[in-house]
Amino acid sequence: MLAVVYDERFQPLARIRKRTKAYEGAESGLARIVEMIRAALDEAAVTPDRVRGVGIGCPGPLDVNRGVILDAPNLGWKQVPLRAELGKALGAPVVVANDVDTGVYGEYRFGAAKNARCVLGVFPGTGIGGGMVYEGRIFSGASRTCVEVGHIQVMPGGPLCGCGHHGCLEAVASRLAVAAAAAQAAQRGQAPNLREAAGTDLAKIRSGVLAAAIEAGDKVIEQIVRDAARHIGTAVAGVVHLIAPDVIVLGGGLVEAMPKLYVETVTEAAQARVLPAYTDGFRVVAAALSDDATALGAAAWARENVGRQTEAS
Amino acid sequence: MLAVVYDERFQPLARIRKRTKAYEGAESGLARIVEMIRAALDEAAVTPDRVRGVGIGCPGPLDVNRGVILDAPNLGWKQVPLRAELGKALGAPVVVANDVDTGVYGEYRFGAAKNARCVLGVFPGTGIGGGMVYEGRIFSGASRTCVEVGHIQVMPGGPLCGCGHHGCLEAVASRLAVAAAAAQAAQRGQAPNLREAAGTDLAKIRSGVLAAAIEAGDKVIEQIVRDAARHIGTAVAGVVHLIAPDVIVLGGGLVEAMPKLYVETVTEAAQARVLPAYTDGFRVVAAALSDDATALGAAAWARENVGRQTEAS
Repeated sequence: MLAVVYDERFQPLARIRKRTKAYEGAESGLARIVEMIRAALDEAAVTPDRVRGVGIGCPGPLDVNRGVILDAPNLGWKQVPLRAELGKALGAPVVVANDVDTGVYGEYRFGAAKNARCVLGVFPGTGIGGGMVYEGRIFSGASRTCVEVGHIQVMPGGPLCGCGHHGCLEAVASRLAVAAAAAQAAQRGQAPNLREAAGTDLAKIRSGVLAAAIEAGDKVIEQIVRDAARHIGTAVAGVVHLIAPDVIVLGGGLVEAMPKLYVETVTEAAQARVLPAYTDGFRVVAAALSDDATALGAAAWARENVGRQTEAS
Repeated sequence: MLAVVYDERFQPLARIRKRTKAYEGAESGLARIVEMIRAALDEAAVTPDRVRGVGIGCPGPLDVNRGVILDAPNLGWKQVPLRAELGKALGAPVVVANDVDTGVYGEYRFGAAKNARCVLGVFPGTGIGGGMVYEGRIFSGASRTCVEVGHIQVMPGGPLCGCGHHGCLEAVASRLAVAAAAAQAAQRGQAPNLREAAGTDLAKIRSGVLAAAIEAGDKVIEQIVRDAARHIGTAVAGVVHLIAPDVIVLGGGLVEAMPKLYVETVTEAAQARVLPAYTDGFRVVAAALSDDATALGAAAWARENVGRQTEAS
């Protein structure tokens, strides 16, 4: 978890990181969030009464209108009334949004997608997160977040996905899927550099390790990453026909470690698949703000929505 | 083509139909449109100075901001400045939108999707048209229409689509694809009722004929239609993850002829595929307004956008 205190011009005054320890449960998790925010305010020497709003970007699915985490598989939390609880504890208006959405909003406001009319964000990680900013606002469903690009089916009958279906984008192109394919190559002796650096444990095959192995000459790892990026491109093409984004932002650790490879391969695969009318309508870019995108985006989104969202409930 | 004159409360005052004859070219087509609109006004006894606006729903892709038909394969027209030309000829503000979008907007304002927050429309016909109304407005791309549900890939390596790719929804579930499969069944002797009613000519195998053949006992035709509807359901599930519509409107001739079969089968297939978080978030309904949806929607959309769209150019 990351907490950042921003001033009115979105200059950071303090920044604190804490391990989430989601497995300890939602109650203790909420307490840790409150503690972290208070510590960040302390460090910034900002008294609680001067806080205009608190923006939270967190894993979904969420009911953003009520500010409730519905059922977050990555946290193991269900039906957690985040906005109400934090609002009570902090005495300030709280605005809750999906972390990928706030990341995309951050890139839209301050980063790689400034002034775009419709931004699609695709963030491959443990899963593959998606988010969208349309005409200046985070796009969302009636009672839950959406833009689940990770569950676009790209390979009917393909590998089993965490969601129980087969051939979802996530099942063939997430960091986890890439790491699993890379571990197999290492085990087969086809990726000596990767094997030496990380062995065959998925938990150790992180984005930086993969990038370094490619750099050191493991051709098969490059092929694995390009295949994954190509699947992302195919899925992106499908989304382009639906929502015609002008900018597609790729983010997350893998992209940060290999921005050129990802932008090139995704662009190529998407261009090969879109209808002619769309070929000149979009560009693919790498995220510019790294982890800060989510915090900045959450803060800026809170500023736009304090009042608006809290009244809606 | 259909022209309807509405009063302020959207009660129809006159209605005129004309064959499009798109093959005669855009110039003659424009002249025919102007003629038809003038005839409708005459019939309604409305003088041109009393026209508040003209809404046009026409096949895309379009640049809706400039009111230009970019390249409409079904018309064979390219780069036609519809808004400018009609505006000049009629002396009234003109608002141009995609015909499926205006149909969906019509259903949103007056029909099967009243008050929905996000409406997805899927209209199987010669192709498969899509449209979306999000928070009260037609959703559109930066410089072109979108929501091309017909080109969602549902069967990689599947049948060739008119767009040049393989396995698009349109290639397996449009009226044309259904008619082609039905004609084969008729030729094989498996659909005696269809064969007797329409032979094996795709042009004669219309929606009503298909519905009548099923009614008369051609089991294989029912299977063909259900297979097509199931593909639509799979594609709909993919869109549900992306944009979380609360209402999905199915329209067009096939659906009108067999609303129960379509709504049931699409619902079932979509429910089987969506993530658990979305199962109770949407419902599938049949369009309620038939052809009038497009005209009504175009008129209502023009009323909302006169000034707004014309200033944007």
